[in-house]
Amino acid sequence: VTITVGLLGGGSWGTAVGSLVACNAPVTIWARDSVTVEEINRQHTNSKYLPGSQLPAGLVATTNLDEALRRVDAVFVAIPAQGVREVLSLARESIRPWIPVVSLTKGLELPTGKRMTEIIEELLPGHPVGALTGPNLAREVSAGLMAASVIAMKDEYVAKTMQRLLTTGVFRVYRNDDVIGCELGGCLKNLVAIATGIVDGLGAGDNARAGLMTRGLAEITRLGVAMGGKAATFAGLAGVGDLVATCTSPQSRNRHVGLELAKGRSIEEIVAGMSMVAEGVKTAPAAQALAESHRLELPILREVCRVVQGHRSARRAFGDLQRLSAGQESEPG
Amino acid sequence: VTITVGLLGGGSWGTAVGSLVACNAPVTIWARDSVTVEEINRQHTNSKYLPGSQLPAGLVATTNLDEALRRVDAVFVAIPAQGVREVLSLARESIRPWIPVVSLTKGLELPTGKRMTEIIEELLPGHPVGALTGPNLAREVSAGLMAASVIAMKDEYVAKTMQRLLTTGVFRVYRNDDVIGCELGGCLKNLVAIATGIVDGLGAGDNARAGLMTRGLAEITRLGVAMGGKAATFAGLAGVGDLVATCTSPQSRNRHVGLELAKGRSIEEIVAGMSMVAEGVKTAPAAQALAESHRLELPILREVCRVVQGHRSARRAFGDLQRLSAGQESEPG
Repeated sequence: VTITVGLLGGGSWGTAVGSLVACNAPVTIWARDSVTVEEINRQHTNSKYLPGSQLPAGLVATTNLDEALRRVDAVFVAIPAQGVREVLSLARESIRPWIPVVSLTKGLELPTGKRMTEIIEELLPGHPVGALTGPNLAREVSAGLMAASVIAMKDEYVAKTMQRLLTTGVFRVYRNDDVIGCELGGCLKNLVAIATGIVDGLGAGDNARAGLMTRGLAEITRLGVAMGGKAATFAGLAGVGDLVATCTSPQSRNRHVGLELAKGRSIEEIVAGMSMVAEGVKTAPAAQALAESHRLELPILREVCRVVQGHRSARRAFGDLQRLSAGQESEPG
Repeated sequence: VTITVGLLGGGSWGTAVGSLVACNAPVTIWARDSVTVEEINRQHTNSKYLPGSQLPAGLVATTNLDEALRRVDAVFVAIPAQGVREVLSLARESIRPWIPVVSLTKGLELPTGKRMTEIIEELLPGHPVGALTGPNLAREVSAGLMAASVIAMKDEYVAKTMQRLLTTGVFRVYRNDDVIGCELGGCLKNLVAIATGIVDGLGAGDNARAGLMTRGLAEITRLGVAMGGKAATFAGLAGVGDLVATCTSPQSRNRHVGLELAKGRSIEEIVAGMSMVAEGVKTAPAAQALAESHRLELPILREVCRVVQGHRSARRAFGDLQRLSAGQESEPG
């Protein structure tokens, strides 16, 4: 049986995943922007979001939600976090019952603090939900470079089917049944990436960067475990893997935000100068609220939240973190 | 009470740690090389191993083991792994009973596969043993840049004393009671650094590097847990932290070995061209033997071992790893 796929979102990651799936199954991308849709269909490129990449001829696009969804056996969602609820509300009439719905988005909804699969479950009850996450810079995946990723779903049979749909020669997909942990790893790592950009921007060195990433990982693991995830997940591709890629690659948007904050620029100015969404800027207050509701002391996340909200300079936040005293590794600070 | 310290080894890390401790306590370095000793005492520099660093005037050195050790209350050992047994055999007559002995060395002894604290316990029974490990590139520490480290000791009181001895304004020392895990993290990460150097040298990209580091971390965690360490330790400074610093810094010797292997150079040629020891080259066969004795399937470690022993080219090893099929994240492959 051939599985057909509908994919919501024509941004860089949606287009890159669409190109992968097109190797294994028919796939239709829905995008709001008719210029992008025409370009994908006629020239097999997406010059706005994936400049320089040639897309497979089998990848088709439409601006019509019903056309993209009404016949498909699986749906992938690659919409910025703050837009997922709106698009799914419009899309749900067209989505057949029982089919799996997989999130490709790494962010939390404001002001609810909900994960993407929570929104999907709320709007599309009865559908198996999942998340694809891991160290996957879109431009490299689309250029055919090797990458490892993780599909998080409760049901092993559905997960194996998604794994087959997504696997190509160089794109390796692992499975993990910890949906909460995988999804939170993908969101929360963006806050550590902002912090890392700040530390790099201040010229603190390779040791400081590695130390900050590790202590940041300890914080997101504590929050993730409090919310029902497994610690091992945060040591895997959705945690350490994504953290390493995002905190060390010059292609990372969230690290870029931190680098610019370290120069003393305001968050409004930085965001206005970017063509793509840096999810961490909006995830920060949501994560801070979750940490407070679980009564967790997470100093790095707290400082990032203060800095992106304009309440503290990057330099001052870094200084305050250095002054915390160090105890057991398992303790905050 | 003032604690006085003896430190064995005048290499880059020994000298850097000696300089830190000299802020808090009297410390004498023992080194074999009389030129290095004279230079530390007269010019307060160690131009061979820490070029460009000014050492504290309070840091003194000697070529006489007994002079370095006979009055001290704590001993630090910063000798290359294959030399620790010999130096401690000569030193033990001069070391007072009961005093703590802390390893600064990240390697395993050949052919025994023993950790450094195992050798210390064997030669100096009755002494509390520990290891200082974490993301600590010597040159940055000695330049006064910020770093986080971890002191691993069973006894909390002794650990807190060592923590105070080592902590300076920008050098943050955490505690962890998992000595086995901390020590293995510091050794085994060098094998992943060699693999990362290979992947970087082959131009595989940021995603591939992050994926390899994560799957490498999963392997060293499995081996470490089988040997009695805790999984959480490998997600901390001794695991992830050190892995990140070693796999991403241009200053890393083990990553350098991988980069050169990717060019097709032989291991003999590479090692002959380096002035300092890349511990990973000797750790590889020891780790492989340990994995076999615990009946663990660890494909990345196995390929690194084959490559550094000259049994396989770097390019072939990378190709073989890509062909493994991906399953659950918790499984090998």
